[in-house]
Amino acid sequence: MTETTLRSPADEALLERFRARKPVALARAISMVEDERPGFQDFLHTVMADGPSARRVGFTGPPGAGKSSLVAAVATAYRTAEEQVGVVAVDPTSPYSGGALLGDRIRMNDIATDPGIFIRSMATRGSLGGLATTTKEVVDLMDAFRFDRILVETVGVGQTELEITAAADTVVVVLVPESGDAIQAMKAGLMEIADVFVVNKADRPGAARLVKELRQALHLRAGSAMKDVPAHHGVDLGRALKRERTEDPPAPDREGWEIPVLTSNALTGEGLEELLETIAHHRTWLTEGGALEERRRERAARRIRDVVDRGLRRVAWRSERVRALLDEGVERIARGGGTPYSAADEILGALLR
Amino acid sequence: MTETTLRSPADEALLERFRARKPVALARAISMVEDERPGFQDFLHTVMADGPSARRVGFTGPPGAGKSSLVAAVATAYRTAEEQVGVVAVDPTSPYSGGALLGDRIRMNDIATDPGIFIRSMATRGSLGGLATTTKEVVDLMDAFRFDRILVETVGVGQTELEITAAADTVVVVLVPESGDAIQAMKAGLMEIADVFVVNKADRPGAARLVKELRQALHLRAGSAMKDVPAHHGVDLGRALKRERTEDPPAPDREGWEIPVLTSNALTGEGLEELLETIAHHRTWLTEGGALEERRRERAARRIRDVVDRGLRRVAWRSERVRALLDEGVERIARGGGTPYSAADEILGALLR
Repeated sequence: MTETTLRSPADEALLERFRARKPVALARAISMVEDERPGFQDFLHTVMADGPSARRVGFTGPPGAGKSSLVAAVATAYRTAEEQVGVVAVDPTSPYSGGALLGDRIRMNDIATDPGIFIRSMATRGSLGGLATTTKEVVDLMDAFRFDRILVETVGVGQTELEITAAADTVVVVLVPESGDAIQAMKAGLMEIADVFVVNKADRPGAARLVKELRQALHLRAGSAMKDVPAHHGVDLGRALKRERTEDPPAPDREGWEIPVLTSNALTGEGLEELLETIAHHRTWLTEGGALEERRRERAARRIRDVVDRGLRRVAWRSERVRALLDEGVERIARGGGTPYSAADEILGALLR
Repeated sequence: MTETTLRSPADEALLERFRARKPVALARAISMVEDERPGFQDFLHTVMADGPSARRVGFTGPPGAGKSSLVAAVATAYRTAEEQVGVVAVDPTSPYSGGALLGDRIRMNDIATDPGIFIRSMATRGSLGGLATTTKEVVDLMDAFRFDRILVETVGVGQTELEITAAADTVVVVLVPESGDAIQAMKAGLMEIADVFVVNKADRPGAARLVKELRQALHLRAGSAMKDVPAHHGVDLGRALKRERTEDPPAPDREGWEIPVLTSNALTGEGLEELLETIAHHRTWLTEGGALEERRRERAARRIRDVVDRGLRRVAWRSERVRALLDEGVERIARGGGTPYSAADEILGALLR
């Protein structure tokens, strides 16, 4: 697999425009990947040759937590710093996002006219099963398109959606007082994926309680960490971080990252600065602590597995013989003469013979 | 694969107790399947030999829609009719279920002491990726355990969770006024999976509007159906159904099933009778219209594919050579000497050679 393996002159032309950073070429490439059109893997291989370079931040949380508003605010801040920003939103088309979503999208549209930012909303419908891998591949396309920052937004409900957060270097879990208590967040596995917790809509009743619960849950989980909680995990993270900046930056904690719990109000911008500082702080820890390379290795291993599994499925179900065995199996089961397991055994036998 | 292929005497003993309908044996078998312990597929094959017989009803909808209360009410009604009832709940451990979940589970526990009902809550954590298939296999175990009814409850958020509804013959989508409008339900693909819509907590503001929107959306989708909407899709489905029962039951509509939109209040029991009647009505349509056999064929085909894919993944990643190639690939990528796609190509080459 080299650049010369691109299937068609059309792909070569697309590659050229992609490298010239034409947004329309990026959009085309994304569609190519989403539809798994012939040669899409060759295209990915070609543009990914230089490896990842973008700073990837994932935002996940319940519908209505205000993720999109927060992503829009963060994206705007990065744009103000002249960074090129890509946004991948796994569209929570579920009705459960309530009215919040529409409002969020409208706020998102405020910045959608800026040429320095590219927003792609992934449809969750249709691509059943493949959504996680496809979304990660779209993030890689954006990385190859040389955005400085890539913000990945997923509704943190459901396994597929949570898995997508693995595409990010830093995962911000956004909660609101309404989204339940810390125990539920723990049970949902959010403690495992979160690098930063943000309690958004912090002006609402219950926000302080949720922050307290999250910190307690995190400290319980960290076990002995209870004894030596870093200063900047006190009540005012913002002031602590500002204090830090007045001195030389502290040596990154190679032992591990203490997950901070921040508060924000995406609409007023309250807490935004602290969030940006924390993301930057985490980036320092990731790079100097060696965790970034580790995460990228894990990501590479996972991607290789996914691509191999996808390839195996293709080879298997492309075969006439296998499809015939599938039909025969279904017929036998309908007549009460077998089970999916005996039929699968036959097919595996044929494939592995 | 025959009964004699069971891996161990322990499995044989488990099979015997399973066939004697010992609940503890069912629980053991479920754990065996959940953990994918050696021989679990042989066990499934053995107990599934007679094919499905239970009436499977799926309930899906947003966290807090009151699904569990509705499931508990429906289960209680079936128990009153002396039916053996199995319940599989894909536990929405997400924090987004809010406080409702706990309350629902407590109500569920009211009936959990009844020996004629078996409730299994599937953990969504850990089994990333395999949850959909595993849950369907647990439903098949319950079917083989000879429950008359199996109620499958999933939080209808996320692709994995929605896919699970395919294990049911009749899918009831439970919404509440808070869960957004009909357009969102349509976008979420709920129109595709719903056989029956229930607007629960119908006493809340917005319920009537949601019912109206859903009916309009359904009729738009059905296209010309607008012209000839069956009588029982008018405002009072309940009365219409009771009217039906005074005459001979109508011939089932072989052209298709008009998705009814019901209202309910799981706590007061309001609308429960209409729901039970509609589920029975749908059952008649499924069996007499031939749709049930079709759904079972689709289910069998899907299961065969899933089991084959799972088998291919196992064979592939069990191989020392493949795992070595995976590690080499990750190393090369870390050194900037390749992409997941070139590494996957190598592995597929080794596997398919």
